[in-house]
Amino acid sequence: MKLVTYDAGSGPRIGGITASGIVDLVSAARGQGMEIPGTMQGLIEGGAPALATARTILQDHAGDCLAPERVRLHSPIPRPVRFRDACLFLEHLEKAYGMIGREFDPQFKKQIIYYNADNVHVFGSGDTVLWPRDSQEADYELEWAVVIGKGGANIARENAAEHIFGYTILNDWSARDLQMPFMACGLGPGAGKDFANSFGPCIVTADSIPDPYALAMTARVNGEVWSQGTTGTMHWSFEDAIAKLSQDRSLVPGEIIGSGTVLNGCGLEIDKRLADGDVVELEVEGIGTLRNTVRFAAA
Amino acid sequence: MKLVTYDAGSGPRIGGITASGIVDLVSAARGQGMEIPGTMQGLIEGGAPALATARTILQDHAGDCLAPERVRLHSPIPRPVRFRDACLFLEHLEKAYGMIGREFDPQFKKQIIYYNADNVHVFGSGDTVLWPRDSQEADYELEWAVVIGKGGANIARENAAEHIFGYTILNDWSARDLQMPFMACGLGPGAGKDFANSFGPCIVTADSIPDPYALAMTARVNGEVWSQGTTGTMHWSFEDAIAKLSQDRSLVPGEIIGSGTVLNGCGLEIDKRLADGDVVELEVEGIGTLRNTVRFAAA
Repeated sequence: MKLVTYDAGSGPRIGGITASGIVDLVSAARGQGMEIPGTMQGLIEGGAPALATARTILQDHAGDCLAPERVRLHSPIPRPVRFRDACLFLEHLEKAYGMIGREFDPQFKKQIIYYNADNVHVFGSGDTVLWPRDSQEADYELEWAVVIGKGGANIARENAAEHIFGYTILNDWSARDLQMPFMACGLGPGAGKDFANSFGPCIVTADSIPDPYALAMTARVNGEVWSQGTTGTMHWSFEDAIAKLSQDRSLVPGEIIGSGTVLNGCGLEIDKRLADGDVVELEVEGIGTLRNTVRFAAA
Repeated sequence: MKLVTYDAGSGPRIGGITASGIVDLVSAARGQGMEIPGTMQGLIEGGAPALATARTILQDHAGDCLAPERVRLHSPIPRPVRFRDACLFLEHLEKAYGMIGREFDPQFKKQIIYYNADNVHVFGSGDTVLWPRDSQEADYELEWAVVIGKGGANIARENAAEHIFGYTILNDWSARDLQMPFMACGLGPGAGKDFANSFGPCIVTADSIPDPYALAMTARVNGEVWSQGTTGTMHWSFEDAIAKLSQDRSLVPGEIIGSGTVLNGCGLEIDKRLADGDVVELEVEGIGTLRNTVRFAAA
């Protein structure tokens, strides 16, 4: 099941994608004498019963559908309660750290390193990302992410999959010229990344991705392929991350954990940068394509 | 005006502190034929009108009050929409970095460095903080914080004070043995801090603190003074932080920006650590005392 948050002119609504188009879940539920929460966060917190309702609505739906080109997509969760980006693909880091002359710390192999990321400046597919005026080095990062369904602490590795609501694509936009001096202080990328994260185009529920660690990943800039990889090269799985990050700490419904960047999944690694007006498309097999235009504030 | 979020047995409510005790704002408003939002986040989003209502309610209140010892305090904002801890006291950092043999980066003086902090594991005054099992090096950090009222982007330094809803005390609990290896990767303190932040006991609204940069700060452990300082030694002010952090980015109502630790405001700097059962009290003049007990999960 593919779920979206969209706006067809009357504010954000949640929808399901069918072969005929986007179904407004709340209206369709009402039409079938059912009820469903009106936000993605509500749907996630509703657990298995809410998800079952969504599935029933979409299976039986015979009414109106919206053509995808008639709606504006938001991030599937417009303001995640928390978003952390984890370093699950280690080859990218080894290469990226080499590019900036920094040693690859053995801690990355000993434990799952992550950083708390920006949950406020969140964009959906189709949005224009306004680049900060004080940056000239614009970069994308080709990632995907897991959305937590059921929360909990001390989740065993073998039960971790039960806590996955679904998957989405993530573009972890990075202003390299802001990031590097900021990160030199040891407290994380901060201003270098805290102006935009894109998620989307949808969340694919976990049951619709039977083999999550064999998905092709592609980044295109103005139609040209810049990055290609696969989810199969992850050193740590999302299940590893869920087990580790929940140790003596709680995961909460609707929070997002990013994968980190796939090998060669950003301009830093392939020695390229984005320009004003560039259209960046990130595609992950089975999820879709997350498309954004970069606009330099100074331009 | 001092505002709290508390529970007297029927779930979280917001209250105002008067000489007679805590006033339940929603009930008192109803009694006076008025209405007020039922959460601190709602009160903040309500802006000047909601704050004026709270003030009127407390001024005219002649009804029931709760004795402070009869309620459990929560963090004034139980789950902040975002929480960043900034490095506004530089002497602490210079000393702390020296203690761990790390160079103090000149970037700290060139720009305001911060990290995105945990907005999920949030405690109030009186709460017990359960220490992670994999840590033996328990430490506190004596800080205070600003709560953003009116949001906005590109806020001029001279207008920044208008965006301050109020002030609170912050204990940025730090598991030093988890923090140091994690931070070595450059992506921030992560697991070393993402298990507990305490805020409280209240938010003091900005109008009640006419001179915010002359407040005594004290940390006591089991009644013994461990740290003493003043808000007057901040290298950057909260107004500086608001101007800088809003450049091409939005601040949102209810988000919290921490000050970072005052000089000698943590065990790391004075070569002490906390033990199981220790009671840590952080006092900031004009705000109150934030009190927590540390309990080792393994004990």
